[in-house]
Amino acid sequence: MKNVMWDIAHLGHVELLTPKLDKSVRFFTDIMGMSITAAQGDSIYLRAYDDYEHHTLKLTAHKHAGIGHHAWRLRSADLLEQKAAAIAQTGLGIGYTEGDLGHGKTYQFRMPSGHLTEIYFETEKYKAQEDKSALKNTASKFPARGINVRRLDHLNLLAPDVAAFRDFQLTYLGGRLSETIIFDENEVKGAWFSVNSKSYDLAVTGDHVAGMSGRFHHMTYAVNSREEVLIAADIALENDVFIETGPHKHAIQQTFFLYLYEPGGNRIEIANPTARLILDPDYETIVWSREERLKGQAWGLQTVPSFHTRGTPMPEDLV
Amino acid sequence: MKNVMWDIAHLGHVELLTPKLDKSVRFFTDIMGMSITAAQGDSIYLRAYDDYEHHTLKLTAHKHAGIGHHAWRLRSADLLEQKAAAIAQTGLGIGYTEGDLGHGKTYQFRMPSGHLTEIYFETEKYKAQEDKSALKNTASKFPARGINVRRLDHLNLLAPDVAAFRDFQLTYLGGRLSETIIFDENEVKGAWFSVNSKSYDLAVTGDHVAGMSGRFHHMTYAVNSREEVLIAADIALENDVFIETGPHKHAIQQTFFLYLYEPGGNRIEIANPTARLILDPDYETIVWSREERLKGQAWGLQTVPSFHTRGTPMPEDLV
Amino acid sequence: MKNVMWDIAHLGHVELLTPKLDKSVRFFTDIMGMSITAAQGDSIYLRAYDDYEHHTLKLTAHKHAGIGHHAWRLRSADLLEQKAAAIAQTGLGIGYTEGDLGHGKTYQFRMPSGHLTEIYFETEKYKAQEDKSALKNTASKFPARGINVRRLDHLNLLAPDVAAFRDFQLTYLGGRLSETIIFDENEVKGAWFSVNSKSYDLAVTGDHVAGMSGRFHHMTYAVNSREEVLIAADIALENDVFIETGPHKHAIQQTFFLYLYEPGGNRIEIANPTARLILDPDYETIVWSREERLKGQAWGLQTVPSFHTRGTPMPEDLV
Amino acid sequence: MKNVMWDIAHLGHVELLTPKLDKSVRFFTDIMGMSITAAQGDSIYLRAYDDYEHHTLKLTAHKHAGIGHHAWRLRSADLLEQKAAAIAQTGLGIGYTEGDLGHGKTYQFRMPSGHLTEIYFETEKYKAQEDKSALKNTASKFPARGINVRRLDHLNLLAPDVAAFRDFQLTYLGGRLSETIIFDENEVKGAWFSVNSKSYDLAVTGDHVAGMSGRFHHMTYAVNSREEVLIAADIALENDVFIETGPHKHAIQQTFFLYLYEPGGNRIEIANPTARLILDPDYETIVWSREERLKGQAWGLQTVPSFHTRGTPMPEDLV
Repeated sequence: MKNVMWDIAHLGHVELLTPKLDKSVRFFTDIMGMSITAAQGDSIYLRAYDDYEHHTLKLTAHKHAGIGHHAWRLRSADLLEQKAAAIAQTGLGIGYTEGDLGHGKTYQFRMPSGHLTEIYFETEKYKAQEDKSALKNTASKFPARGINVRRLDHLNLLAPDVAAFRDFQLTYLGGRLSETIIFDENEVKGAWFSVNSKSYDLAVTGDHVAGMSGRFHHMTYAVNSREEVLIAADIALENDVFIETGPHKHAIQQTFFLYLYEPGGNRIEIANPTARLILDPDYETIVWSREERLKGQAWGLQTVPSFHTRGTPMPEDLV
Repeated sequence: MKNVMWDIAHLGHVELLTPKLDKSVRFFTDIMGMSITAAQGDSIYLRAYDDYEHHTLKLTAHKHAGIGHHAWRLRSADLLEQKAAAIAQTGLGIGYTEGDLGHGKTYQFRMPSGHLTEIYFETEKYKAQEDKSALKNTASKFPARGINVRRLDHLNLLAPDVAAFRDFQLTYLGGRLSETIIFDENEVKGAWFSVNSKSYDLAVTGDHVAGMSGRFHHMTYAVNSREEVLIAADIALENDVFIETGPHKHAIQQTFFLYLYEPGGNRIEIANPTARLILDPDYETIVWSREERLKGQAWGLQTVPSFHTRGTPMPEDLV
Repeated sequence: MKNVMWDIAHLGHVELLTPKLDKSVRFFTDIMGMSITAAQGDSIYLRAYDDYEHHTLKLTAHKHAGIGHHAWRLRSADLLEQKAAAIAQTGLGIGYTEGDLGHGKTYQFRMPSGHLTEIYFETEKYKAQEDKSALKNTASKFPARGINVRRLDHLNLLAPDVAAFRDFQLTYLGGRLSETIIFDENEVKGAWFSVNSKSYDLAVTGDHVAGMSGRFHHMTYAVNSREEVLIAADIALENDVFIETGPHKHAIQQTFFLYLYEPGGNRIEIANPTARLILDPDYETIVWSREERLKGQAWGLQTVPSFHTRGTPMPEDLV
Repeated sequence: MKNVMWDIAHLGHVELLTPKLDKSVRFFTDIMGMSITAAQGDSIYLRAYDDYEHHTLKLTAHKHAGIGHHAWRLRSADLLEQKAAAIAQTGLGIGYTEGDLGHGKTYQFRMPSGHLTEIYFETEKYKAQEDKSALKNTASKFPARGINVRRLDHLNLLAPDVAAFRDFQLTYLGGRLSETIIFDENEVKGAWFSVNSKSYDLAVTGDHVAGMSGRFHHMTYAVNSREEVLIAADIALENDVFIETGPHKHAIQQTFFLYLYEPGGNRIEIANPTARLILDPDYETIVWSREERLKGQAWGLQTVPSFHTRGTPMPEDLV
């Protein structure tokens, strides 16, 4: 048994691109219950009420929807150079930056799928002011507005070659492969990665649209209970937010999910993990076959076709 | 900033002593919804439905209630000798054992408070048979019996000298001190330790009964929702299980709690953590003052006096 | 405005027919968490933990699935003769019986759809013994077993002529028509009747299978929260109980639902009404059009085809 | 057995007096999630999102807190004169009024405890405009703001002579006495009245402060789940709203409760009834003795002293 490398602490933030910045901002503030921490250039920075950093979401105006980049926070400062050096040798490294609003020195690179990725340690922790929580162990006050999402949970990307993405992720970033879908003849259709006790922080699933790369499937914010996922569905219904599917329970990872489209066109998930964690340091990867996937979601819901095909940007966006 | 040592994966199991073994076993199976995996000598081994190891609870017949030992699983096999060597130098080491039912080679030592403690890596993962779950990422079938606890969550010990316990724990076992109570003039009244993304895995609070050491305060199993903690309270009420306090929310750690006494006299907590996790690798310890503690629990409930004084064994047990 | 007639107190019980009596009984006891109160001839009588009468379900062995009869409890004893006389004049009356286990004098008749129906007032209230609840305002102890259904909620029948059923129900039994589906040109596709503050106690929907009459669509037991409906789905999944659809929220009546097939083939719903009640004494019937129904359930789930076609008995049962 | 009189449909509205009208309005809109439907003179009219009438709460500026009046909606228009005539004969009648904003002709009288009370049938049903719900069976849109209370649930008054209040209520208004507290030697300490399928719509408990009459104990709005009562407690905590007690479960009526003080000083309850209803038309009153009450609330919480003594106005308000 090879030891798992635990250098990454957690998914830090995601930059989403949106062709409707104002409406997207209103979705994340009024409907999701998130707060704006900064605005700079064409970007707005937001966080959920218990996200401890400056932001977990950067919304950037763009001609089409999609992902700008995603970033991982390292477990300690001294890991930055060490990991950067290893990644540089793969030929996928880009180089250091001085960081962005809310975090310091950063190393940038591309995943084999083309997704722009960052690692960093130095960060600006959020200091609540008038939004200070009555409980000093909460990053800011419970908003009592909209869906009241608590924290960034995970990111799901699309990749033409899931196996290549997976190998790079495990080799250079570390963590465990908690679950995977492998069809006949070793075709890897999906991979779920966990860098801490959560059962996943990143998922990558196959991009079925020929010629597309670097696409975004969804990102997820966690609420405190499944009941709040149900309430989120009512809030979406009452506010003309498109519900793609759910609430229901995934067989993979057992996530209780709800998928919405934000006004810019990106898919956003509201989820609750119940009390599930992976504490086992040598957890054996759960492998799902084609036959098992055909059973649909945990309670029998058939997966909606768009879930398999829609990513952002969409092919028509690039014409 | 000093780097945190992440050598411990999680709390492995707890051995509880009970003067009423049969009744205690029925409590943990019928009321808590746990399952027996083995019986040997005067001990019964049990687990919750999603505990991945052979057992998380060992119930041992004894003349009085209390704790036999608790054990930590390490992140990798090579850490056992390394940590054992360091601990041996403190004079608190006991030595290696061949393990017990369900786990392999183990190093035993005493905490400064006298609590017998173990570290191990080799373990026997539970292989469900007729209790196999329909979801292959669950250790065994949801029991649909009693409180349906999912997994071991944490342990709370009593120590005459909390500061000494804390220093040993952080130095030799690692993890973060996520929260602590410090009264005036630096008197440490409680300490909460986290070895993974959970906000705590072990708590130690001051033993206020003169002359007692090595006592047990409570251990906790997690359920999937706060609603299930409420249902647990109804189940306790309907089955003559003593409810000491709760359901309510702790200010410290925000745990939604219910405290019961099992028939042997030990305090058992049913809890749900909502979506709270600590992902920040350099989390700053939350410090609670005397004034803050006087406010009671999160929503204003005053802490019941027995919570501050009762531990097992009780002084009268030792006469 | 015509005054509503409030002579009926509530739906009393349903007799289900099953070709697999033993397995059906185990489903209702082990999975649903109900209790047996009596057995007589080919029938087993059951109740949920807070049903106040002797039984709300009578399971009777039969060559095929379906419904034997359903019964309404009147608001007072003196209403029995008065209503029987009125019904007798319609030509659909059958006559008085001495009752059955658990209830007294009864008047039997057939609905225009052929469903055997009863009205009664004299009843035997359940006297809990060893299953006595710790709370004297609960009919019996919370079972802590399986789905823990609390009380009978409603019944859904299939009728070839929904309008005829509706007119008879409102004229001779009373209550309000809380919701209805009317397609173009006045085609009544479904009707929901409420005889108390619940938003419905009986639903009748169109039977689309030519030549069938007197069929059963489903009956429903209520649990205390939507969370428990989700837990029910897990229990069904873990115990090989077929989930037809759900959990999800109906647009009609807003019911949070889960539909299962019991081993005999009858459809059983687990539901939670949230805090919804109809208190308005002159509530205006909600009318749903074809276009509105095409939107699917509340959060967009498309209704599964079997929900529109499957009733018991099924045509092949009658060959 | 005497037949129960079911002439009252439900509790219609409550007029609360507040010395801090602006702050009270903000509490009910921002924290409770209610909406303003009208303002007239010194009064503001509000409703919860699924209240079907013009208002269920009238807030009126006054030198001290307390209750202005409460009103019952009748089951049909023809009952108004009939009941008024009967009440007039008791000497407690006041006379007819033309009604108020939101309802028509009304008969006013005083309860033996001095509480000003109204009965009416003609009402103005709320017509949602921009707050129209996506579900046509909901009175208006789910607010997604604060506690999101759904509907008025019940009212609790204080009376020096509970037995006199009870006898008047049952004789002239009708409904059932669902639960009552009777101490030794027939001292009636509390009475709970139900006029529909809810287990209570009005409670009256003994006023222990000598010389006080016509006082208010609390009024209650229902939310859809117990989880939302827990969320309400967090919202109160985060917004400096005083939590008197709870969340916990009452033994009487099983209500899952949270008691807050609105800025004017009146006690407000947030509650969820789970799936409990009283459907039995000849329900036998549950009688609680002194010994049973000493056990505290359902799960053992001792009732806070202020719950037994504090009503509005408070004696010092009247100096």
